[in-house]
Amino acid sequence: MPDVIFPLDSTKPFTEQEILGHNRWHPDIPAAVSVKPGQSARIECREWFDGAIKNDDSADDIRDAPLNTVHRLSGPVRVEGAKPGDLLVVDILDVGPIPQEEGPLAGQGWGYTGIFARRNGGSFLVDQFPDAYKAIWDFAGGKATSRHVPGVEFTGLIHPGLMGTAPSRELLSTWNTREATLIATDPDRVPPLALPPEPDGAILGSLTGADFERVASEGARTAPPRENGGNQDIKNLSKGTRVFYPVFVDGANFSVGDLHFSQGDGEITFCGGIEMGGYLDLRFDIISGGMDTYGVAENAIFLPGNSDPQYSEWISFSGTSVTLDGEQRYLDSQLAYQRACLHAIDYLTRFGYSPEQAYLLLGAAPVEGRFSGVVDIPNSCATIYVPTAIFDVDVRPSASGPARIDAGVGAPHSAF
Amino acid sequence: MPDVIFPLDSTKPFTEQEILGHNRWHPDIPAAVSVKPGQSARIECREWFDGAIKNDDSADDIRDAPLNTVHRLSGPVRVEGAKPGDLLVVDILDVGPIPQEEGPLAGQGWGYTGIFARRNGGSFLVDQFPDAYKAIWDFAGGKATSRHVPGVEFTGLIHPGLMGTAPSRELLSTWNTREATLIATDPDRVPPLALPPEPDGAILGSLTGADFERVASEGARTAPPRENGGNQDIKNLSKGTRVFYPVFVDGANFSVGDLHFSQGDGEITFCGGIEMGGYLDLRFDIISGGMDTYGVAENAIFLPGNSDPQYSEWISFSGTSVTLDGEQRYLDSQLAYQRACLHAIDYLTRFGYSPEQAYLLLGAAPVEGRFSGVVDIPNSCATIYVPTAIFDVDVRPSASGPARIDAGVGAPHSAF
Amino acid sequence: MPDVIFPLDSTKPFTEQEILGHNRWHPDIPAAVSVKPGQSARIECREWFDGAIKNDDSADDIRDAPLNTVHRLSGPVRVEGAKPGDLLVVDILDVGPIPQEEGPLAGQGWGYTGIFARRNGGSFLVDQFPDAYKAIWDFAGGKATSRHVPGVEFTGLIHPGLMGTAPSRELLSTWNTREATLIATDPDRVPPLALPPEPDGAILGSLTGADFERVASEGARTAPPRENGGNQDIKNLSKGTRVFYPVFVDGANFSVGDLHFSQGDGEITFCGGIEMGGYLDLRFDIISGGMDTYGVAENAIFLPGNSDPQYSEWISFSGTSVTLDGEQRYLDSQLAYQRACLHAIDYLTRFGYSPEQAYLLLGAAPVEGRFSGVVDIPNSCATIYVPTAIFDVDVRPSASGPARIDAGVGAPHSAF
Amino acid sequence: MPDVIFPLDSTKPFTEQEILGHNRWHPDIPAAVSVKPGQSARIECREWFDGAIKNDDSADDIRDAPLNTVHRLSGPVRVEGAKPGDLLVVDILDVGPIPQEEGPLAGQGWGYTGIFARRNGGSFLVDQFPDAYKAIWDFAGGKATSRHVPGVEFTGLIHPGLMGTAPSRELLSTWNTREATLIATDPDRVPPLALPPEPDGAILGSLTGADFERVASEGARTAPPRENGGNQDIKNLSKGTRVFYPVFVDGANFSVGDLHFSQGDGEITFCGGIEMGGYLDLRFDIISGGMDTYGVAENAIFLPGNSDPQYSEWISFSGTSVTLDGEQRYLDSQLAYQRACLHAIDYLTRFGYSPEQAYLLLGAAPVEGRFSGVVDIPNSCATIYVPTAIFDVDVRPSASGPARIDAGVGAPHSAF
Repeated sequence: MPDVIFPLDSTKPFTEQEILGHNRWHPDIPAAVSVKPGQSARIECREWFDGAIKNDDSADDIRDAPLNTVHRLSGPVRVEGAKPGDLLVVDILDVGPIPQEEGPLAGQGWGYTGIFARRNGGSFLVDQFPDAYKAIWDFAGGKATSRHVPGVEFTGLIHPGLMGTAPSRELLSTWNTREATLIATDPDRVPPLALPPEPDGAILGSLTGADFERVASEGARTAPPRENGGNQDIKNLSKGTRVFYPVFVDGANFSVGDLHFSQGDGEITFCGGIEMGGYLDLRFDIISGGMDTYGVAENAIFLPGNSDPQYSEWISFSGTSVTLDGEQRYLDSQLAYQRACLHAIDYLTRFGYSPEQAYLLLGAAPVEGRFSGVVDIPNSCATIYVPTAIFDVDVRPSASGPARIDAGVGAPHSAF
Repeated sequence: MPDVIFPLDSTKPFTEQEILGHNRWHPDIPAAVSVKPGQSARIECREWFDGAIKNDDSADDIRDAPLNTVHRLSGPVRVEGAKPGDLLVVDILDVGPIPQEEGPLAGQGWGYTGIFARRNGGSFLVDQFPDAYKAIWDFAGGKATSRHVPGVEFTGLIHPGLMGTAPSRELLSTWNTREATLIATDPDRVPPLALPPEPDGAILGSLTGADFERVASEGARTAPPRENGGNQDIKNLSKGTRVFYPVFVDGANFSVGDLHFSQGDGEITFCGGIEMGGYLDLRFDIISGGMDTYGVAENAIFLPGNSDPQYSEWISFSGTSVTLDGEQRYLDSQLAYQRACLHAIDYLTRFGYSPEQAYLLLGAAPVEGRFSGVVDIPNSCATIYVPTAIFDVDVRPSASGPARIDAGVGAPHSAF
Repeated sequence: MPDVIFPLDSTKPFTEQEILGHNRWHPDIPAAVSVKPGQSARIECREWFDGAIKNDDSADDIRDAPLNTVHRLSGPVRVEGAKPGDLLVVDILDVGPIPQEEGPLAGQGWGYTGIFARRNGGSFLVDQFPDAYKAIWDFAGGKATSRHVPGVEFTGLIHPGLMGTAPSRELLSTWNTREATLIATDPDRVPPLALPPEPDGAILGSLTGADFERVASEGARTAPPRENGGNQDIKNLSKGTRVFYPVFVDGANFSVGDLHFSQGDGEITFCGGIEMGGYLDLRFDIISGGMDTYGVAENAIFLPGNSDPQYSEWISFSGTSVTLDGEQRYLDSQLAYQRACLHAIDYLTRFGYSPEQAYLLLGAAPVEGRFSGVVDIPNSCATIYVPTAIFDVDVRPSASGPARIDAGVGAPHSAF
Repeated sequence: MPDVIFPLDSTKPFTEQEILGHNRWHPDIPAAVSVKPGQSARIECREWFDGAIKNDDSADDIRDAPLNTVHRLSGPVRVEGAKPGDLLVVDILDVGPIPQEEGPLAGQGWGYTGIFARRNGGSFLVDQFPDAYKAIWDFAGGKATSRHVPGVEFTGLIHPGLMGTAPSRELLSTWNTREATLIATDPDRVPPLALPPEPDGAILGSLTGADFERVASEGARTAPPRENGGNQDIKNLSKGTRVFYPVFVDGANFSVGDLHFSQGDGEITFCGGIEMGGYLDLRFDIISGGMDTYGVAENAIFLPGNSDPQYSEWISFSGTSVTLDGEQRYLDSQLAYQRACLHAIDYLTRFGYSPEQAYLLLGAAPVEGRFSGVVDIPNSCATIYVPTAIFDVDVRPSASGPARIDAGVGAPHSAF
């Protein structure tokens, strides 16, 4: 096991740790720790809400989730010698949950998937699911099961939802400008189009005083993926993966958080995947001048690991870019994927699941979401693939009609 | 081998065959042939341009491709007893190229990928690639190679790009109305937003006279995927797949065409995948009342086959929903996938490929395109996965810099 | 499709074809056809008993199978320029069944698995299964089902059981000497230890007269795999595979036959896999001096194809090298695999199969057989892996006990 | 993380731990710990030589390895309520190395593969490799590399080599009798045919006094796999696997040890796989009366996990049952696999490896070994599959000849 360079005391909140992390992107957040090229290191991570979501049967915590406080990031990690224009090489040597002895995440051999309510973030299918829902997942043997979504068990595809390097001053300015422009087109939208800098709830490592105030007012929110990687929510960044990040500041200032035990492509419930705290063992290296050498000006490239869970039988659903109201949109793959997801949900309800159980399942299980056709004007075609072996019953269509699962107590639900 | 119910004489054009197919969707196109539930049958298919694209080193044929004439569909096949509300079960028993002895596709152990020019259809990356390009692929041993994109060889993932059932009168009307509404928002756009009914070039099976005129003026174009399946371009509809289509008219009136030897997710070059003529062996069955039983009101669902080519090592690229000009878009996965594709293209040029060679390769090879994050406001994150084993050289980033392939003669190019 | 260099008329027996093949190994059997390095060619093959086994419900044909007449091999194919010491490179471009219109194999979208009786060849488990049994398998959509082994369906792993190059005079002499020595240790054994040269039933291409007599009396039987490849029965020589054979005579004189639609590791029923006639598309090349360059003095090496059927869930059985009578043998993997197979058979009978149905299934389905431990004195450990997705019912152990399949009419049986 | 029911203090030898394990099989060894059905538990394991093999560059420790002392087993674990005739269900929830802070295995992010010398155990290829050799493997990121076998890196397929239940008195007697009978056929053989009970070095849990003496003189050695599972060395018993063991004594008395970071099929070097200490998280359950219900009288059956490392490109070698001296053996798969392994070794030497480096690699990497043909009299055919992606260079045959790796310092070697 590599040395723990970023430890977290599970009995204390994120803001009371010896080494303070951060929850905004800014070049002036000082590096918390430092590594040499070639070095391996263990980094511990809090789940993104730092324990605000409980292992219970109420969705009130999801409804009221404190979005200003996310994501708790471990870092920045300074990589000695890294310079703007380099590629930072990050090997994911290991990633897993940390069972906690005490504190808010005590005994965390579990995680959660939430559907955000419209008035607090919303989700991919917010028009169909305007309220908050939750599912608790228990981990055992590398597999997840849930009392809130019974009749399924699947192997975890453990990965960090968020990794990235610090932006340069110029890049940060670009972000803030372009996102403000978007917000300005509909500033009162619920859910919002984007999240502007927000001093409330900002955590900025060792910064204090005027520097804290300035950075808190400028720091970019961590919700979106951007040129530095960030919250890409790529489910395939699993153990064994090598990722290459562009470097924008001296030292690269790498940060990581938002661990998932599993996630379906898209993280469609927004508050999921299966969120959990845990650890990563990472090895850092540098390809000097690699951004230019390899034409990587932005966004991570990666070589995925080869130990992801294998499933060979799938049931698949397709969707096109026509709204539920029948409006024809032009090559809108986002919409096509929504329609494919809704088709999968409708289908699964015939086996006894509630729509929200099916939705939570698609957010949590290792489902594949693919761009199948993106040019066949005016309709994009998107497809979603659900492994059939994860279900206790046979979920394939047949002349004899659907088997029925026992949907149990259902998913906790909270409305405003 | 099942009986050939829809034969094509390779020495004659599609319009001079004994059994006439069609290239528009309309409930009044009479069934060309008939099968019983449980029956297997071989259906032959012309490539979508019926031989207009040649195995040569000019892209003029791509530039001037006669879009009004596509897709040559084999069918309609009437399935006895199928009724609206049923699910039509289609097993893809086999699918492959037909080597032709004579005629326009003589010796077709080959196929092609084209990038459409802006003024004739355009493609997924039309702003970056406004002209026409072509690559010819040779098939041997289930693998494809190209003199126009040297240094790669990959196993075919053979599939039909287009399968579907006939629309009902109401459904056709819905299509025409909603697409006309879209077109009306920018009727002179190049490329167009959608393709309205077009009598010119219409082929309508055995229809003649006034019926022909009426149906030609009403029939929906075959470019887009819609509720009936249609041109979904799902690369995973390979041998061994079972597909379930909603039935909208008596007999289902199933049609098929647009065979691909391989395709990357999205069919991003538009005139690709690797287009080819060939055959399908299909088995038909019915789940009576299945649309309601399984909640399948529209769009195909399917159980993919289990013999797709296996690759275990990939290089992957990500993109987000910011335009090349720096404009922030809201959760636009279509854009995010474009950016991921452009990143892959930029990267591959460092190994010696021209941008258009890299683009043609991504359209043709079995690359995966995934919705990674679709909720992280304001940025979608899309990813594209390219199998590394298809390249003659090691295409992974390293401190020693990229190896160079010999890009050869390059891809044929034609501008207007 | 490559040119057919070795055609077979399905209305005529193997011995009445225009181009005669052979069923013995000998350097003096003249090449039947010739190819150039780099050339692709189609070769048609008869099933190994040339139609003696019928698609019916009797096992008399298996009991009385004419073993002297096997294997009908297509070839020899002379590869121009090949010299002793070279490696012959054979790409399996395609392999599949040929549906026959007429003659003894008419309509052959089917194949068979037989268990040889002790008095006519015997099988891997001859002591437990001394009589003859048969199962007919029907092919559709690349999958096999059987009226004699109901409740299973699996994707074919189509491959040639037998490919090889002609032996040199010295090598043939080595074979005959060492096999005669083995036979002499127990010349009356039933089944025999090995098969000596046998003029009766010999087919020797274009040879006639005294040459025929001499070669018939010297030619090695084709049952065993040997230095030249031969009847290796490697189920993984599927489409997309590249095989490297040592060359022992000028022109290599390559031959092929014994096609299987599928086979479990070991071909444990002896008259199985699923035997069928069919075709191969092969591409030939030479690595000059490759035997020395790569240290390949004997036996094929190969790069398997990447489109084999994928199964991700298995049930597995183990066995060790103790006989059923309780005798301890020393590191005998052959015995350990027998015991593992017997355990699998015992297990499957609890689900309703007869022992012979289970045995036929293990011989035919794509089961894996592995050497797990070969050094743990005195016991070898062998394991067999059966894909669970091929069964209609769940065949995993559970507290609720086994589900029952309907075993149907059972497997045809014939005793002497 | 489950409770640790069998902890090991890494600063102390196996014999000085608070809870004592054992290294012989005997029904009278008392259970060390107890679990309830349904319970999960962590069990720590020492590597099989308890630290006698060092992370250094000498093979003296392999040459002199104290075989009387193996295997250090953690257990017996009593499963409450288990009765003879039941099936014990063991889920492998997790398995991995434990990095040790102090003591003989300090810092063990490493393991070793050894080739035993003929005079101390021997190996699968003892005639070709009569001396002792060693390779040290370093673990990082779930992958192994070695200074003694450079140019390769592979993902670990972590598993316990040895798990099993205690034998009944009758079963133990059967073992001792049949193995003594075998030994008696050649009692002075080097290496021996089997290992009789050996009081010297026996560790028997909490037994003392006369009981200790009796059990030490009767207890079966742990080297071989037997009816109770035992040292099966099945590389596929990886995380996510469910194993079913026959129960022969009240409480089942389950034990486990001999963890491997990876292993090629067969564990051909004998002192390999990659040996390491570590932990297992197991969940125990019972199927009452399951031995009869499922026909499992002996030997484990199992459902393998689905997260094993995926490799899609292989180079494969075959062998038949003819000795190197040219003697024809009858259907001897053990010999055929030896010949296949020797072919692989010969081949790899052409790329620069020493024969012993190649041998160590085949014992350690996740290579597959299959029974390809077991009935083709007189020759068995065995095959071995080596993943090509584990090599730094391309190891496929080509006209340009083999690339050369830098074999480095080579593998440590010690002769008697």
